[in-house]
Amino acid sequence: MTETHAFTVKARDGAARIGELRFSRGTVRTPAFMPVGTAGTVKAMFPETVRSTGADIVLGNTYHLMLRPGAERVAELGGLHRFMNWPLPILTDSGGFQVMSLASLRKLTEDGVTFRSHLDGSEHHLTPERSIEIQRLLGADVTMQLDECVALPCPDEEAERAMRLSLRWAERSKAAFGTDPARALFGIVQGGTVPSLRLASAEGLTAIGFDGYAIGGLAVGEPQDVMLKTLEETVPALPEERPRYLMGVGTPEDILLSVLRGVDMFDCVMPTRAGRHGQAYTRFGRVNLRNARHAADPRPLDEESECPAARDYSRAYLHHLIKAGEILGAMLLTWINVHYYQTLTAGIREAIAAGRLADFAAQTRAAWAAGDLPARD
Amino acid sequence: MTETHAFTVKARDGAARIGELRFSRGTVRTPAFMPVGTAGTVKAMFPETVRSTGADIVLGNTYHLMLRPGAERVAELGGLHRFMNWPLPILTDSGGFQVMSLASLRKLTEDGVTFRSHLDGSEHHLTPERSIEIQRLLGADVTMQLDECVALPCPDEEAERAMRLSLRWAERSKAAFGTDPARALFGIVQGGTVPSLRLASAEGLTAIGFDGYAIGGLAVGEPQDVMLKTLEETVPALPEERPRYLMGVGTPEDILLSVLRGVDMFDCVMPTRAGRHGQAYTRFGRVNLRNARHAADPRPLDEESECPAARDYSRAYLHHLIKAGEILGAMLLTWINVHYYQTLTAGIREAIAAGRLADFAAQTRAAWAAGDLPARD
Repeated sequence: MTETHAFTVKARDGAARIGELRFSRGTVRTPAFMPVGTAGTVKAMFPETVRSTGADIVLGNTYHLMLRPGAERVAELGGLHRFMNWPLPILTDSGGFQVMSLASLRKLTEDGVTFRSHLDGSEHHLTPERSIEIQRLLGADVTMQLDECVALPCPDEEAERAMRLSLRWAERSKAAFGTDPARALFGIVQGGTVPSLRLASAEGLTAIGFDGYAIGGLAVGEPQDVMLKTLEETVPALPEERPRYLMGVGTPEDILLSVLRGVDMFDCVMPTRAGRHGQAYTRFGRVNLRNARHAADPRPLDEESECPAARDYSRAYLHHLIKAGEILGAMLLTWINVHYYQTLTAGIREAIAAGRLADFAAQTRAAWAAGDLPARD
Repeated sequence: MTETHAFTVKARDGAARIGELRFSRGTVRTPAFMPVGTAGTVKAMFPETVRSTGADIVLGNTYHLMLRPGAERVAELGGLHRFMNWPLPILTDSGGFQVMSLASLRKLTEDGVTFRSHLDGSEHHLTPERSIEIQRLLGADVTMQLDECVALPCPDEEAERAMRLSLRWAERSKAAFGTDPARALFGIVQGGTVPSLRLASAEGLTAIGFDGYAIGGLAVGEPQDVMLKTLEETVPALPEERPRYLMGVGTPEDILLSVLRGVDMFDCVMPTRAGRHGQAYTRFGRVNLRNARHAADPRPLDEESECPAARDYSRAYLHHLIKAGEILGAMLLTWINVHYYQTLTAGIREAIAAGRLADFAAQTRAAWAAGDLPARD
């Protein structure tokens, strides 16, 4: 196993743990939520604002960046950190997931995947080796192996085929990545919702040896209980001393329940995408600022929040901005949401440190269930 | 004349002057550029960022705000300052200009103008009295009279008719405004490009007595030299001890040349609108970030700028954001532009104080004419 940067588990509470993943650019406190910086920007946020919410790391999308402006271009410009003015760690995905969801005319072979760009129709070929090369050009602190993610539900044979292919690609990814003490390479567990496939995937990846282990192929349409059951079956098969990353997850509740099952890292477009559509994540649950009940409400979204956007603007103003299609509405709500996700993970870390995660989870879920403040009369 | 807040001319350089317009909410340093906060937001900017550029005052649009969320609604919510989280002075326009440019089925009578909302087709009636009432509900520090602005070129008879109507509306506006020592009321000079009409308008308004005098009906399609000539004929007819506001102007050069002719205040959507369309205003002139020559350029737009957006991001990144339609592109370029307009007016004020405005103007125009930095080879 490549001994690169250090991951240290600092404390445990049940299956949950807090840890630190250290890079030369900074330390990622886990459990960590990584805001998604799709095309070199966490949409509608200044990087300083992202940082101010407490985010230690952001995610960049290989698929988007390889098509525009191109990985070689980003490298010439000094890498993704400099390009997007984000000096802290960056995790890049492999590009595989978005090839499958966004590109057209995809053709998957043992070698890799050929596809046409959704932007201009140009043809591209992505292999495990090219994905590693692109992520190196981008300058990722955490590189992800190329894998194949199938939509759920799917036949067991299909889940197994994709899992086996992903394992072979994991091996090629590791070989292509080589040894790079400054950067980390994560493998990705696949296997659908079939416990034996997940175990085989986890064992295969562990045998190859990675700096961290992602759980892929979840949050792709299955019910939450199926996802949680799969986590319960998969996480114990992963090495204790390595970070575990649940890809593309999820709602605040998904995150809380997954931490309880031993997950350390998360990414999701929900807080940013929802913000652009007038939805806020708060300690009262999800609040739809488009709703007319906010139109005359002078109260801030959450007067106890430490986020200026949640505290210094009325609900009526946020409602107005969203209704009017103003960019500032997306800016404020995205900020509110990313801040809330960071507040949640910070609260989770504190609770684990204090050995009271179960209480924290119960209280947090009760507050979500109680819902938003009653309308002003 | 109502003695309200104080306007003090602090120094002169030729026809140009620097001054201070003091309100309980803050002092406006003139010459001043007012960013336009159309619908309760300077588009794509946090109010703190607007303030950080050096803006002392912003403009709010009565037409937009009366339709959505409604003036009474804004008043219930504590006024426009609180609504948009902008604690400094606000000038509101009368709504008339945008009724003429945006609304449908307009019908103008001696009493006022009836129109249908461009948002939902609802019918509204705007009179001089209602415009004053709306601006009071919004809580404007500077209220503008309702006027009729004609497009140029237009027949002299039409310019005279609109100017006479605007004068009668000025009288009604003054009566409706009454006495309010905390707030200012500005009259608006009309008269197209006919010197005798401009003089009659200025004299009529001065006889009524206002806290400031706006020059309306310019920058509506006429060549720059026609605008400047009209200013040269109009400004000397305005009271020395009152601020002069050239409405809807303009490019950086328009502003510089108008200050040289004695104008104190400006507003324009150019810096914000251009920013959303990939255009930057800089000391090198206007720069189109969409242009492919920026695609691989690692240099910031202006490394000597004090604006983080102009200094901390490469031209290649700005180009990428604009090409990708990312909100952050609009955020950064709007910030750059509003900052540049404030830097320009701050430079103008310093030059007037030092009695070297002519030199400043020559150097600034020469730098604009020299154009952007040469492309990187």
